Parts: sequence; structure tokens; C-alpha cells
Amino acid sequence: MLDILHRVGIKSSVDEVYKALTAREGLAAWWTNNTQGEGKVGGVLRFRFVADGVEIGGFDMKVLELHPAKLVLWQVVDGPEEWIGTKISWELKQEGEYSIVLFKHQGWKEPVEFMHHCSTKWAIFLMSLKSLVETGKGQPSPDDVRIGDWH
Amino acid sequence: MLDILHRVGIKSSVDEVYKALTAREGLAAWWTNNTQGEGKVGGVLRFRFVADGVEIGGFDMKVLELHPAKLVLWQVVDGPEEWIGTKISWELKQEGEYSIVLFKHQGWKEPVEFMHHCSTKWAIFLMSLKSLVETGKGQPSPDDVRIGDWH
Repeated sequence: MLDILHRVGIKSSVDEVYKALTAREGLAAWWTNNTQGEGKVGGVLRFRFVADGVEIGGFDMKVLELHPAKLVLWQVVDGPEEWIGTKISWELKQEGEYSIVLFKHQGWKEPVEFMHHCSTKWAIFLMSLKSLVETGKGQPSPDDVRIGDWH
Repeated sequence: MLDILHRVGIKSSVDEVYKALTAREGLAAWWTNNTQGEGKVGGVLRFRFVADGVEIGGFDMKVLELHPAKLVLWQVVDGPEEWIGTKISWELKQEGEYSIVLFKHQGWKEPVEFMHHCSTKWAIFLMSLKSLVETGKGQPSPDDVRIGDWH
């Protein structure tokens, strides 16, 4: 099994980052403005994306675990075939003035080209999360930073 | 063994991207302005970085393979302990108006926190490469985009 890993440091409290990863308005302000559903444990969050004005699909995430200011764990229950069953974990800790986010998208079966793309795109969205928490403004879909032909 | 994977699409010919990955002036314009050494097969390229005005080390890469407009392969011969012996490959292909870069930093022994950091930072530098080739201006060190407390 293969994982996508990332780490960013956000100048803020971990509580603020945790809020941006769990409240629907938070998620909508850095990942995609089309965020629906229920963010409690056992609930399902629905993220949908737009590219060049066209809806291009998205992901449904079941919330498996929530530990305030420490951990958010989702499992993909609908979306691209390669994503289904994979888990996405957000581990948080405070280090000085920074909240450290350790991100893992775990359980890819093969290192397909789409996994390469998703790895880069996750980094871009983590920078959007950082920007949202630090400045109040993220870059969620449909205004996300484009990284290539696969958007 | 664990790999960092990324994919970007750059609106350009693969020849332009290949040049930015092999010519010293190209590398200096997206990765670090302190790029020295010899970019031919068997040569060693030396990349050094600055953060907050202080030199923070860098990497020496032996050039293992060069296939014009197709592949660049380096091996790390000096740098942080976790990097030594790992390989970095840049696979290129044209898809329509985009040059696709498939990036792999292969052979990490453990998924340490530093690997998470390097994964995100590679994405940032790939976006700097994209920007350089598409617009003529990258964001190499010391003007690189900061992702956290580890720079």
C-alpha cells in the first residue's frame, strides 16, 4: 500500500486548523466551495469540484475519527475508483508559533499517474488551508491553483 | 522503500522543460540560485539553499541518466542523511499543448516527518519550474515559497 504524505506549518493555534478541517464553512473556504453533508463522526462529507465551469466530480468522505486539535480521519466512500476505501488523516500538533499538519492519504494500490497528480494537488490545497487560516482567504475550487491538463 | 510522487502539466514543449532540468541556468531559475557543478552524465550538481539569510545546507546530485526530452535521473550523493542514496527521476512526455512531468523521489527508508515536508516542498518547486517555463520567472531559493517552520 502506498501513501501520499505532506507537512505544512501554519502560524496559528491548532484549534483554528482543526476548525478549518471539520466545520463545513472551513472546508468550503480552502478545498471546494461545494462542500455538503455532515461533519460529525459517522457522517459523510460531500466535496464536489468545478473546472472551467464544468462539474468534474468529487469525493464522499465518511468521518471515522475526530480528536479535537489532534486528529481528523476520513475514509473515501465514493469518488474516483482509485480513491475508494483509501483513508485521509490529518494529524495536528503545536510547535512554537506553528500548528504542524501531518497529512496522509493512505492505501493507494498502485503508483498510477493519477496518484502523482493527486499528490501535487493535495500540496496546493494544503497551501490553500494555510493561507485561509493565516490570512482569512484560501483558494478553494473553483478558484484553485491549476497544476496542469488534469486541472 | 517509499517514494514521493508528483505530476504537473506545463504549457510548453518538452524540450524547454528538459532544458530547465539540465542546464545550470535553468535549475538556478526554479530550484535554487546557488546551483553549481556539472550537469553531464557522471557529473555532480551542487544545490545550496538559504533561509532567512542563512545557508541551510543542500544536496549533491550525481547525474545518472539523461535522455533528451524524455528522462533525467539523479542520485543523491551528499545532503541530509535521509536523502543519501535516494534517486530523483523526471519523466517527460508531450500531451497536447502540455508537457507532462512525472516526478519521483525514490527510495526513502521510512515515512519520517521530514519526508512529509520534502513531499510538499517538491510540489512547491515543481510549481516554480512550471512558472519558469510558462512565464520566464520561477521562485527559486532564496525567494521560494515558505511552507512552514522548516522553511
